[in-house]
Amino acid sequence: MSKKFQVVGIGNAMVDVLAHASDAFLAENGIEKGIMQLTDRARGVELYGLIGPAKEISGGSAANTIAGIAHLGGSTAYVGKVKDDQLGEIFAHDLRAQGAVYETPLAPASHEAETGRCIVLVSPDGERSMNTYLGVTEFLSPDDVDEDQMAQAEWIYLEGYRFDGPESVAAFDKAIHACTGAGGRVSLTLSDPFCVGRHRDAFRKLIQDHVDLLFCNRAEMLSMYETEDFDAALEQAASEVSIVACTDGEDGAHVLSEGKRWHVPAMPVQIVDATGAGDLFAGAFLWGLTNGHDLETCGRMGCVAASEVISHIGARPEAELQAWFKDQGLL
Amino acid sequence: MSKKFQVVGIGNAMVDVLAHASDAFLAENGIEKGIMQLTDRARGVELYGLIGPAKEISGGSAANTIAGIAHLGGSTAYVGKVKDDQLGEIFAHDLRAQGAVYETPLAPASHEAETGRCIVLVSPDGERSMNTYLGVTEFLSPDDVDEDQMAQAEWIYLEGYRFDGPESVAAFDKAIHACTGAGGRVSLTLSDPFCVGRHRDAFRKLIQDHVDLLFCNRAEMLSMYETEDFDAALEQAASEVSIVACTDGEDGAHVLSEGKRWHVPAMPVQIVDATGAGDLFAGAFLWGLTNGHDLETCGRMGCVAASEVISHIGARPEAELQAWFKDQGLL
Repeated sequence: MSKKFQVVGIGNAMVDVLAHASDAFLAENGIEKGIMQLTDRARGVELYGLIGPAKEISGGSAANTIAGIAHLGGSTAYVGKVKDDQLGEIFAHDLRAQGAVYETPLAPASHEAETGRCIVLVSPDGERSMNTYLGVTEFLSPDDVDEDQMAQAEWIYLEGYRFDGPESVAAFDKAIHACTGAGGRVSLTLSDPFCVGRHRDAFRKLIQDHVDLLFCNRAEMLSMYETEDFDAALEQAASEVSIVACTDGEDGAHVLSEGKRWHVPAMPVQIVDATGAGDLFAGAFLWGLTNGHDLETCGRMGCVAASEVISHIGARPEAELQAWFKDQGLL
Repeated sequence: MSKKFQVVGIGNAMVDVLAHASDAFLAENGIEKGIMQLTDRARGVELYGLIGPAKEISGGSAANTIAGIAHLGGSTAYVGKVKDDQLGEIFAHDLRAQGAVYETPLAPASHEAETGRCIVLVSPDGERSMNTYLGVTEFLSPDDVDEDQMAQAEWIYLEGYRFDGPESVAAFDKAIHACTGAGGRVSLTLSDPFCVGRHRDAFRKLIQDHVDLLFCNRAEMLSMYETEDFDAALEQAASEVSIVACTDGEDGAHVLSEGKRWHVPAMPVQIVDATGAGDLFAGAFLWGLTNGHDLETCGRMGCVAASEVISHIGARPEAELQAWFKDQGLL
């Protein structure tokens, strides 16, 4: 293809604040394990005062995906809003240093909200519980979307979490029309089962009308189609979009497309921090797809990339993913 | 003892910006491997634009030492200056969350300088090269030192790096007199061989007049006494202070006191990031000392703590150091 970008992502721009926490701490502080909860600034400040020493590492679900594709050498851009403050500088630096184009206008230093941050509490078993203060990322609007950039994308990648803002839904809409109008395709991640619960109808309409490639995990898939029958949900999704890529934890991932179905295995590693597993699955899958690999290989690349990112603290790749793909015979 | 604090530290308050870098990158960008270089803000910004994706983790040499003692359960306080900005908030949070008292007045948000940051480039062999933009930590002055707090310290711990500011030398002086006037004792770390070169005479006078416990590594020791004869330098130092604790990389550490000398072994581990090895050696040594352990045990605890901190990214302990001490028969 002659497009400038293999993938352009849109999502919540966040700096992750990673700390270890016991299951007892989660219970005492009303934090549900393994999911993302939105907090206001006051609750974010309160929680930050309770947690132990932390590390700050750029995060944001779609931003992790885009960073992963850039890490693999893919051409990418990202749209998500940070402020002109120190955390915003860190977020922008890390995306650009990874090779992604990042041109969303900064919210000015005078803006009342700060750059978003996500307190990620990592349990001894590696599971992560996320507490997100959205900050200025909540103010992403159609003005932040450059139609020319979207027209230059082979794929756009939409983060379900950003459906929590009405202006951002309008921004998605603008991006979808600019991208598809120029022959590009649309991928969506459902982000989180509770996010699906908040936006089920809007997601369903988006899926049926515009989505070509749907990313999700088992819990999100079941929530989306309000069933306990995983296979039925997979088949239903596959009837609505061209490609379904659904992760299933230790059981790997399921890829469905045009009547075919593949089950790709997870790559066993020691789980240190599960943050970013789904994001990197999507990144590697899209990188494979836009480099002409078959869907089964894309799924396997996704699982390998997810394994790399859960083997260390932080939601972006540290080892050379292409080398991991070669070790697994995928390149 | 009935004092409130086992150790009160004074030093450069910094947030570390940790990134991986090849030896070629260091050479191309004029960064000398393994040492700390001071940069102005412009150079700091330039360098930040060149490095890859990074992690932000609270650092600062004496702050790492104090965090280590607090991690071990010791009673500690820290004096070092940050600004009322996001990085300052991170620095303060991480010390307090570790259990240290941290009450230094913040520089106001209107201050022209930002909270200090240290770009730490970690080479594939785990060696770290540090590029420090001091920011507001350079403005530490006697007004930031609370004489009552110093009088409540069994030991104060002075970071040699802070000798780069004349006002801070006056702050050290105030702390020393308040501490020793109340029966407390003074420890000093030489910080870096080039720091020793910048302040050799002032360090020498401080050592001879006030220091009870001197921390350094081999290179700093040789620079301090301007000799290539390590044993002669150790003996000279031991004639000037009550206790010398000198680290020697893979060869462990040498402890000298009142005519006696111990050589304690390093604990072999895979070096991931050497940042903080000396800081944690000092922290564990001081924790051992103020808990009544003999000097050889203190030295061995120092080496074990240094091993823990070099086995992961970041300059503060992550594993339970007391468990490591027990494994080594030290507790």
